[in-house]
Amino acid sequence: LGIVSERPPFADYQFGIYLAGLQGELPEHPISAAELERKAAEVMTPEALGYVAGGAGAEHTVRSNRDGFDRWRIVPRMLRDIGRRDLSVELFGRTLPAPIFLGPVGVQSIVHDDAEIATAKAAAATEIPMVLSTASSNTIEDVAEANGASPRWFQLYWPSDRELAASFIRRAEASGYEALVVTLDTWLLAWRPRDLSLAYLPFLKSIGIANYLSDPVFRAALEAPPEEDPQAAILHFVRVFSDPTVTWDDLAFLRDTTTMPILLKGILHPDDARRAIDHGMDGIVVSNHGGRQVDGAIATIDALSGVVSAVDGAVPVLMDGGIRSASDAFKALALGADAVLLGRLYMWALAVGGEAGVVALLRGLLAELDLTLALSGYRSFREVDAAALVRDS
Amino acid sequence: LGIVSERPPFADYQFGIYLAGLQGELPEHPISAAELERKAAEVMTPEALGYVAGGAGAEHTVRSNRDGFDRWRIVPRMLRDIGRRDLSVELFGRTLPAPIFLGPVGVQSIVHDDAEIATAKAAAATEIPMVLSTASSNTIEDVAEANGASPRWFQLYWPSDRELAASFIRRAEASGYEALVVTLDTWLLAWRPRDLSLAYLPFLKSIGIANYLSDPVFRAALEAPPEEDPQAAILHFVRVFSDPTVTWDDLAFLRDTTTMPILLKGILHPDDARRAIDHGMDGIVVSNHGGRQVDGAIATIDALSGVVSAVDGAVPVLMDGGIRSASDAFKALALGADAVLLGRLYMWALAVGGEAGVVALLRGLLAELDLTLALSGYRSFREVDAAALVRDS
Amino acid sequence: LGIVSERPPFADYQFGIYLAGLQGELPEHPISAAELERKAAEVMTPEALGYVAGGAGAEHTVRSNRDGFDRWRIVPRMLRDIGRRDLSVELFGRTLPAPIFLGPVGVQSIVHDDAEIATAKAAAATEIPMVLSTASSNTIEDVAEANGASPRWFQLYWPSDRELAASFIRRAEASGYEALVVTLDTWLLAWRPRDLSLAYLPFLKSIGIANYLSDPVFRAALEAPPEEDPQAAILHFVRVFSDPTVTWDDLAFLRDTTTMPILLKGILHPDDARRAIDHGMDGIVVSNHGGRQVDGAIATIDALSGVVSAVDGAVPVLMDGGIRSASDAFKALALGADAVLLGRLYMWALAVGGEAGVVALLRGLLAELDLTLALSGYRSFREVDAAALVRDS
Amino acid sequence: LGIVSERPPFADYQFGIYLAGLQGELPEHPISAAELERKAAEVMTPEALGYVAGGAGAEHTVRSNRDGFDRWRIVPRMLRDIGRRDLSVELFGRTLPAPIFLGPVGVQSIVHDDAEIATAKAAAATEIPMVLSTASSNTIEDVAEANGASPRWFQLYWPSDRELAASFIRRAEASGYEALVVTLDTWLLAWRPRDLSLAYLPFLKSIGIANYLSDPVFRAALEAPPEEDPQAAILHFVRVFSDPTVTWDDLAFLRDTTTMPILLKGILHPDDARRAIDHGMDGIVVSNHGGRQVDGAIATIDALSGVVSAVDGAVPVLMDGGIRSASDAFKALALGADAVLLGRLYMWALAVGGEAGVVALLRGLLAELDLTLALSGYRSFREVDAAALVRDS
Repeated sequence: LGIVSERPPFADYQFGIYLAGLQGELPEHPISAAELERKAAEVMTPEALGYVAGGAGAEHTVRSNRDGFDRWRIVPRMLRDIGRRDLSVELFGRTLPAPIFLGPVGVQSIVHDDAEIATAKAAAATEIPMVLSTASSNTIEDVAEANGASPRWFQLYWPSDRELAASFIRRAEASGYEALVVTLDTWLLAWRPRDLSLAYLPFLKSIGIANYLSDPVFRAALEAPPEEDPQAAILHFVRVFSDPTVTWDDLAFLRDTTTMPILLKGILHPDDARRAIDHGMDGIVVSNHGGRQVDGAIATIDALSGVVSAVDGAVPVLMDGGIRSASDAFKALALGADAVLLGRLYMWALAVGGEAGVVALLRGLLAELDLTLALSGYRSFREVDAAALVRDS
Repeated sequence: LGIVSERPPFADYQFGIYLAGLQGELPEHPISAAELERKAAEVMTPEALGYVAGGAGAEHTVRSNRDGFDRWRIVPRMLRDIGRRDLSVELFGRTLPAPIFLGPVGVQSIVHDDAEIATAKAAAATEIPMVLSTASSNTIEDVAEANGASPRWFQLYWPSDRELAASFIRRAEASGYEALVVTLDTWLLAWRPRDLSLAYLPFLKSIGIANYLSDPVFRAALEAPPEEDPQAAILHFVRVFSDPTVTWDDLAFLRDTTTMPILLKGILHPDDARRAIDHGMDGIVVSNHGGRQVDGAIATIDALSGVVSAVDGAVPVLMDGGIRSASDAFKALALGADAVLLGRLYMWALAVGGEAGVVALLRGLLAELDLTLALSGYRSFREVDAAALVRDS
Repeated sequence: LGIVSERPPFADYQFGIYLAGLQGELPEHPISAAELERKAAEVMTPEALGYVAGGAGAEHTVRSNRDGFDRWRIVPRMLRDIGRRDLSVELFGRTLPAPIFLGPVGVQSIVHDDAEIATAKAAAATEIPMVLSTASSNTIEDVAEANGASPRWFQLYWPSDRELAASFIRRAEASGYEALVVTLDTWLLAWRPRDLSLAYLPFLKSIGIANYLSDPVFRAALEAPPEEDPQAAILHFVRVFSDPTVTWDDLAFLRDTTTMPILLKGILHPDDARRAIDHGMDGIVVSNHGGRQVDGAIATIDALSGVVSAVDGAVPVLMDGGIRSASDAFKALALGADAVLLGRLYMWALAVGGEAGVVALLRGLLAELDLTLALSGYRSFREVDAAALVRDS
Repeated sequence: LGIVSERPPFADYQFGIYLAGLQGELPEHPISAAELERKAAEVMTPEALGYVAGGAGAEHTVRSNRDGFDRWRIVPRMLRDIGRRDLSVELFGRTLPAPIFLGPVGVQSIVHDDAEIATAKAAAATEIPMVLSTASSNTIEDVAEANGASPRWFQLYWPSDRELAASFIRRAEASGYEALVVTLDTWLLAWRPRDLSLAYLPFLKSIGIANYLSDPVFRAALEAPPEEDPQAAILHFVRVFSDPTVTWDDLAFLRDTTTMPILLKGILHPDDARRAIDHGMDGIVVSNHGGRQVDGAIATIDALSGVVSAVDGAVPVLMDGGIRSASDAFKALALGADAVLLGRLYMWALAVGGEAGVVALLRGLLAELDLTLALSGYRSFREVDAAALVRDS
């Protein structure tokens, strides 16, 4: 039952649910990821559901991201004193309560009216770090305010206008974001049949471009303020959103522009990981953008080990893609990830319950992770490596 | 047809069914495990069904326990005189009729009103040994009385109060339990979405704690008897149920407390198996608690060979997890298990038919095991080893 | 279209169907095995369907027999002059039109009123050899008469009464059966949940024991003729049906009793194949009795190569199990089988259309086999070996 | 978003869909292959659907052609300047806009009234080369006229009448077809249960034999013109359609008859690929005729690497079979194909939307291919080889 004298940091959330049950109270939000996803699909518009659930092409990679975890099995160890656990992880000098992030997801206003503000409050309530997307519905500043003293990072869609890029970075620094996560896999938007079938791209409706519309550099480039000529603003957004000609050498610009640690997100090949280190990057996020960019791309859990080997401890390696449970997270951490980022999983929670939904999801996931760590025979993820797993044959 | 002059010990149960069919009688209980499970799901409450059928997390391990058997195929041998078979197995000096146990399953009163009493009577009727759970609905003593002279073992959830542990062990010894099975994988209760969705934990409703409420040491620690203050008793149960700080060295306490053979249940890693022998343990149960503790844990049939190799015959190795048929049991025994334990399978039978349901299940399973042994070309499981199988490629 | 000047022996059946289509005529019986099975399930009684479709245990082996063929892929060769093909195969001095047999299936009267008589006529109409089961609904003699000059073999369930065995063999010889197929895997009837659920065993209702009731040795052992005391006859049948104590040395009895070639059916292990040759046997049928005896047994297509290697050309190796199409047959033949036997497939055809159904099935299968051979680049199965396949990775 | 200053050649089709969506316009035809197939199945007759969707036997190869692509995963590379891409490919001295062909599919009039004329116009509109089938509903000349200056090849079903073969070739040359694709795998029509169940073969109804009926050599062999005695013409077609006795040496006839490059279609074995080169052939199409000829044949994506290795750059290697998306095409190209041919995929588009449907399919596929190339880190397929993939383990 785990309700021993020394309370574990997260696992007692579970006991609270059972205690409430004695009073006839059932959990307000779904406990299992599958049920959460089902319920989210009920409450979301078809456009929003397609945008969030969908991926590139026939969505092979969306599925293989999830299925890839099945290739690995945990071999729990016994009799090791797992009375007290410590899930904390240290990244860039900051101690985080657990190796779990709310990953960067754009345009959250299509999921829930409270959008990134709800996410930021849920992150603060649980002290789980969030990564704000450039393409957020709420501004860098508003999200920071909602997020308070909680740790937060900023994800950059690197614009073709470098002044705009620098402006985004300055605003993030000024608002207390502590690291910069540069997305490398979305210089072009992929072929996404669900969105195309509905001819739905939220940005063209001015959704998810709050950071652009509020940016002094962006506004200075417009002939009229976006409030007066919204179409021209959208067109300018389309023009500056991305620069597909960027190469490794251009990273020097980012390095010169910020003192924040810089992580490259979208690395899947070991050689690219090595190159990131060679270019002075501070971290890597193994990611295929949730299967939203290259259909048929390698599952991130399959790409992880190669990247971890190549990096060989030089910088932190995070990963996202397909994480739906503490078991998935445990496997990624055992294979060498320093932390994992959630994506769709917390979007379902946001859709279903707003801030409270995300809090409930996180408390449950943290409890499950705490219990999985303990029941596998470990007190800290610092003790867990690939020896905790066997490959499923 | 197998109805030859020398009657086989178990297979003639089959002929009885066909003979009854001539009189128009159909079997009262489902013959196949799949049908039994379906029927059980109809008669159980949602809470009980969720508690018994469910597992940790997304129930990957619940499924892989079962699917793992498909990796192995039996290669039957021909023309070997299988007229008389002997399924008996000797364990700790006791000859058991077959290498099949009714494994420890708690709170059976949620499955059927007759609970462990029905199980004990069914065990006695078939001479199949049972393992009583600490978390039983009926007391050690009442179950022993119902079980009579039939062989029985006691499963221990090792409490944090060592006096209570010693008291349980003394009671088991006094009631004729012949071995102690110590569960190592449940110091904390895992994250089980089905139970959490219903906020259902039977123990908090005083179900499945009969051995505690009836125990002199437990009662002595209460300010008022549980009959007067049941809430305080439950709270004390929660407090003493488990000690997650237990380590290998603590096994000396058990060794000193009982002369019964001690088996460690929950071993999955070969190194832990070796360590168990080093600590003087008398047997091992390869188990992942039916996929109820660590989701994503290795299937027990996959873990078995490694443990058997590590143990190298020093002590008996039993296993549970996913056994739904004689074919499953045959494979586990061929891979080196000395016996297998049933769990959910007999819970479905208990739900559907109480004592009679369990008896029917066991007679059918024994008949099927007898036939499978014979038709594979063997007269005894002592002749069966991994050479009887091929790995499915 | 294959309708070239030199008509292929079997493929023109296809053209006939298309020509009939021009007149608005559709094939009377299903073309595909899947549709044939579906339609058969509609017309059969639940008892007959369960008996024929069902297998041992959870029917893993029933399924893996079929699925096993998917592990192999044909690599067709081009530009090899496949204008004329010869599907014939020589076995025991007899030239057979194709390497296809109607395998031994008992109690066919539960499938269709015309039972083995329909099968024998269909075999004769196509010149495809049949193997009559000891447990047939029609007698050795009646089936022979219906089968005429067509090649036929007799399958023996070796009774415990050797005089009866010798009598069966004498009758088969006298009726023109040309080989003896001794079943080794059914000394005991397996645990078959579908039959047990219906408490249905046809033999106990005097179905499928025609050869016993008509046998002079069998009748001489009865106090009253079966027409007067059918129950006593059934009981005697149960008593003498099988002798599970038979071992390799007992094969000398068969060798001494008949001059027919003797094939052992049920061999799955290479060592048993070698032993069969050492004991002077004339052929082997790799079989697991259609998954009806040992659930979890190796699929026959998986067992085939090992047996073929062990036999190394010394005697013919046939196989059955899971053949549903010419593609399956091609793979088995490429892996070294000299011929394949059909079981359930022709039962579905018998159920759906009696004699005409079986003829239609065979003509279709032969056409498909002829076309598959040709389109793979071969003119005869004598040219086809494992080099025609690749293992699916 | 990809809408940067330097417009990519194909990807901007995507943006057009989103822009139209702003006006409330949804794409007229399905975006995803799965949806396209569903919709096509609704509008086609059962006979046409069976003919196009169906394959040989139990259609294992139809499925494995598609599933085979899942064995490979793309490992995208980052930061490589993918601002401008060039999808063009040079084949036989002609620069083609992309390595995509409309493969040879016969009797398109059963799919859509506009048949091959629609296909030819769609090909011209997109500059994608088409390969016209000998068994087309429209004549070589009419298709050429509709196709205009766009590149086109002619697929030959090599008739038994060599004069007729030469006549087809002459007509193709005269009408501007630039290469000859000789099908090697259809000397006989395979066993196709869907067509046989409906007794449907379009050619016997004079559908799909336009090139024969319009051919001077063919007509000269008839006693009466086909307009007067259509049955006799069909019979003659059946007689001359194919010559299954053709062998490698006969290729000299083709070589002597045309100066067009000759590609052999249907090669699956490396040895046959080598032999094609030895016989002076100019290219190879790895194909199993869409699983329509040998059920159980190796998937073309599985056969590709062996053929590519054997050919070792001597001649171009194309492939067809199972291509349903740009991701599939990317994998085939990475494994060494110089181009891929579409089959059923564009039939669904033709069924749903005629010429416009095929144009929409191609524009979408080209956009997706352009994006997949770019997002995988490449600017040209000349840069892509097997190092872009990993085998799924």
